[in-house]
Parts: sequence; C-alpha cells; structure tokens
Amino acid sequence: MSAPIAIGIDFGGTNVKPGVVSGSKIIARLEPIPTREHDSAEGLLAAVFRDVVILRKQHPEVCALGAGLPGIIDGLNGRVRELSNVPGWRDVPLAALLSEKTGLPSIIENDANAMAYAEWRFGAGRDRLNVICMTLGTGVGGGLILDGKLFRGSQLGAGEIGQMIIEPHGAPGHYGNFGALEKYVGNRQIAERAQKVYTAAGIARRPEELTPLFLEKSALNGDEIAAKLWEDIGFEIGIMLTNIVWLLNPDRIVIGGGVAKAGPLVFEPIKRTIRTRTSGVYHEHLKVVPAELGNDGGIIGSAALAIDAAQRSST
Amino acid sequence: MSAPIAIGIDFGGTNVKPGVVSGSKIIARLEPIPTREHDSAEGLLAAVFRDVVILRKQHPEVCALGAGLPGIIDGLNGRVRELSNVPGWRDVPLAALLSEKTGLPSIIENDANAMAYAEWRFGAGRDRLNVICMTLGTGVGGGLILDGKLFRGSQLGAGEIGQMIIEPHGAPGHYGNFGALEKYVGNRQIAERAQKVYTAAGIARRPEELTPLFLEKSALNGDEIAAKLWEDIGFEIGIMLTNIVWLLNPDRIVIGGGVAKAGPLVFEPIKRTIRTRTSGVYHEHLKVVPAELGNDGGIIGSAALAIDAAQRSST
Repeated sequence: MSAPIAIGIDFGGTNVKPGVVSGSKIIARLEPIPTREHDSAEGLLAAVFRDVVILRKQHPEVCALGAGLPGIIDGLNGRVRELSNVPGWRDVPLAALLSEKTGLPSIIENDANAMAYAEWRFGAGRDRLNVICMTLGTGVGGGLILDGKLFRGSQLGAGEIGQMIIEPHGAPGHYGNFGALEKYVGNRQIAERAQKVYTAAGIARRPEELTPLFLEKSALNGDEIAAKLWEDIGFEIGIMLTNIVWLLNPDRIVIGGGVAKAGPLVFEPIKRTIRTRTSGVYHEHLKVVPAELGNDGGIIGSAALAIDAAQRSST
Repeated sequence: MSAPIAIGIDFGGTNVKPGVVSGSKIIARLEPIPTREHDSAEGLLAAVFRDVVILRKQHPEVCALGAGLPGIIDGLNGRVRELSNVPGWRDVPLAALLSEKTGLPSIIENDANAMAYAEWRFGAGRDRLNVICMTLGTGVGGGLILDGKLFRGSQLGAGEIGQMIIEPHGAPGHYGNFGALEKYVGNRQIAERAQKVYTAAGIARRPEELTPLFLEKSALNGDEIAAKLWEDIGFEIGIMLTNIVWLLNPDRIVIGGGVAKAGPLVFEPIKRTIRTRTSGVYHEHLKVVPAELGNDGGIIGSAALAIDAAQRSST
C-alpha cells in the first residue's frame, strides 16, 4: 500500500501556500496566493478552491485536506475562532466548508501547532515524547507536543512562547503585557537593537539592512558588536527556554525561523544558558536543535494532521 | 458497591504521614513518623510497614497503597530515582517493595504530583482539563494536570515552578541558577525581605517572627509595609504564572501552602497581573483559586493514584 497523500495549505498573513504532501515531502505546489489581494474570506476561499481543483487533477490520489492558520483555531471542532491580522474570519466553520466544497475529509489547525506537528512526525522532533517547537521570525511562535500528542490548551491558546515575559517592567507589547520575549528577539526588534549598539559605537546603519542574515555574516566575519548581540539574544531565548524546561522537562526543543538560521551564534548561548541553570536530569537527555522542515513545516504538518485524523475516523 | 479505600503515605523530609483514605476523606491516621529518626531507608520502611499493619487491622477493606515522595520519582515504573534531602534512597524499586511486603497493589509518585492529582480529583481543580498546581511554602513546588492526565515530563521532572527564573541576574540558587522564583517567595526569603524593609523603615524585627501569618495579620491591621510586601510577592508569582498561562493556557490554577493562606493579599495581585498581561482568551475562562485539601493533599493524592492504578490494571 502506498503512503497516503494529502493537500496541505499554509494560510499566512502574507501568502496562502497550497501543496500536495506525501509523508515529509511536498510533491507538488502552486504559486502562493497573496492573502491581501482578496478582501473577503469568500474571495480568498474561492481562490484556494481553484488551487485544490488543479492539485487534485495532478494528484487524484489525494485523500484528505488540512489547513494551518494563524490565530485561535479550534482544531477539534474545525472552527476558526479568529484569525491574527486577517479581518472577516470570526467564527467560521472552515473545516466543514473545506470538506463540503472538496468532498475531502478536512481539518484545520493553528499554524504554529501544524509546524510543531510536522517537526514531531517527520523532522527534528521525531520519536520524542515531549517536544517544544519555537519559531523565531517577525514574531515568536510556538507549538507543544506533550506525552506524544499535540497540546492545545483549554481555550486552544497554548504555545504562545513569544508573549512570555523576560523583563517584567520591560518593553510594552500587546494585550497590556510588558517585556514579552517577542519584543526583544523578533526580526524588527533585533534590527532596532543592532542599530542602537552600532550607533553607540559610532557606526551608522539603517535598520532595514540589519537583517538576521546580515548580522550573522557580520559576526562570522569578526564583528564583535554583532557577535555580542547574538550572545545577548541567545541568552534571552535561553532564559525563557530554561523556564520551559523546569516546567515541562521536554526531551527535545526545536527552533526554526529566520533567526534560527544564525546557527551556533544563537544556539550556543541558548544551550549554555539551559545547561548552566538546570540540574542534570533536565538537560542531560535534552537536545536543542534547528527545525528540519523550514518554511514547508506548515504545509507538511497540515497535511499530516489531515491524514492522521482521516485514518483515526476510518478505523 | 462502597467506594474503594486505600492507604496514602506522605513521605516528607520532616515526617512520614500515613492515613486511610476514602475518596477525598482521611478516615484514619496515625502519628507522623519523624523521617530523621531513622538513618537508613530500611529502618524508616520498617516503621512504615508497622503502621500499615495497624491501619489495615482498623480497615481490612483497604485495597491499595500509594506513597508520595519528594524527589525524582518514576511513578510509571515504581522506582525512587533520588530523594530530595534524604540520603540512602537512590534507585530503590519502592513500589515493588511496598507491594511485596504488604500484598497490596502499590504505587509511588512525586509528592507535588500527588498533591496536584488530589486537587484535580477532589479539590479545587476538579472537572478541569488543564490544572496548574503550585505550593508556596519553605520551597515552591508544582504539579501539572494536562489534557486530563498527570503530566510528568520526559525525565519525570515536570512542574518545578520554584526553579523558574523571574530575574535572570538575580539571587543565586541551586544548580547554578539565578533569580529562581523560590529565592523570592519561599518562607525564609519572605522573612528576609520583610526584615530588610522593616529595618529600612527603622523598625527592628527578627526574621523568625516574620512568618507569612504574622505578615498577613500586620497587613490586615493596616501595616503598609506588610501590605506592599504582599503586593510585590503577588506580582512576582503573577508574572511567573502569566508565563505559564501563555504557554499552557490552563483553565485552573490552584495555589496551596502557607503563603497562600494570606488569601486576597496575595491572590489579588496574582490575578490582576495575569488579567492585565494576557488576552481574554487566556484569562476569561481561567480561575486562580486556593487549594482545598491543605496538608492532606499528599496523603489523599497518593491513595487516589493507587486506587486509580489498581482499577486500571484490573479492567
């Protein structure tokens, strides 16, 4: 019997990316659909359905459909409670709509949860019981696999690592919060921090050029300001992860997103912080590793969740 | 059919407390056995076995035995990996020893986990899906019920809330850690903080008299120094719990131990901190409440775990 094949759709605030997935491989994909070209949920969905038809013509063996979306997503009941940064999607029974329109068994899930699921099933967290997945990009997101299952929390909001506080009286952020991790290690915040330290050193740089990639190259080329910045960022992320380690005692931490591409520059201080602030029981069996599926995690995870749900309901 | 009855034993660093438990009620108990009167594991166990014999004579219907112990306890395999503050107990197959010696199906569990289980089954966390239990005493401990199950972590170390960092460069503590919550809100630390602020205000007090109870009464009698101290303590605990709320999105937080007896003085700033730093999805369905079973939680939870395990294995 050949492996089941499903369509995975990564609904982002910028693009919607559909693909056909077999296991951990995307075997077909179409051009991303720009999210903001459609000013209604209906318009965007119509574009998605057109893509699904095209993909199924290419791969008639597709047996399920999954979509990962940013926001509060009720994966158990298939409802979008609300989408982050995309208006017009409050309380939409999206899984039922997808299923009705395509005839495929369909599921939806929070996008960070879908990525965590993908890394756990096929990527850097495979075969582990407790996996913390963290994405470092414009924002900081997370998804949790606990006792071998996706953990959603009581109101489906679990895994908001970016909102966890590293500085109680620090930078103001969303929801009345102060000092949230995201306000220190998001891409834009890193650029602003970098500009500040370069300026203090008498070096003028525009924030736009201070991308994680630029700062990585600078540090690797011996720029001590950039190296120190990565050290600070790794320490801050490491403190937050240390807290998660004391609380959940995971055996794997998977870190993805642009910032994670800085490799050892950011991973070394993260690992050192966890190692030097926990007892052996907590860090000796723990590995902190980069994500393996990159930007495809959302598509792969959504498809995998759809296949696993379809198989559960058919047995 | 009458409710099953079990013996629960709370192994503390100071005392070992055995009792006969029916549901959430302790229907018989014996004098605590002072832990340090016995300098070997064998001696202490012999004293425990004598008590078990006495209790079973009083209640022959006892059908299982459970023990809660401080340390790294492998509840799944019934082994004490190591005990906190009690030497001579490394890698002991205690559940098998208890079972062999008494003929009763026996389990062991970490004591904070046993207390969390008791509060979830019979106390302030009952009927909730995700419950964070926290004990504020000499130390700060915790236990987690996630998706309706006791969550132990990959190396059985989950729930160490007291070691979570609230001040990355703060007070030095165990394991190379700095700024752990326990170093701010443990009983002794509260007394030291209180002495410091009273001294600064020109009021001489010995740390021994600055118990949580004394500070509670002082605050209730209009002492602004004590009131401000509770406010600070509540804020610090609240920040840590806010992080746990963003990460795990629980529907119940249960707080026990001596410090929790300060009631609204400490609960109000905790709740306010969580409410003002999270979005509605996270705090509207969340209740932060005092533990209901008090010091008996360890005995009750150990017995409940023993009964539930015995019933699972007999079906």
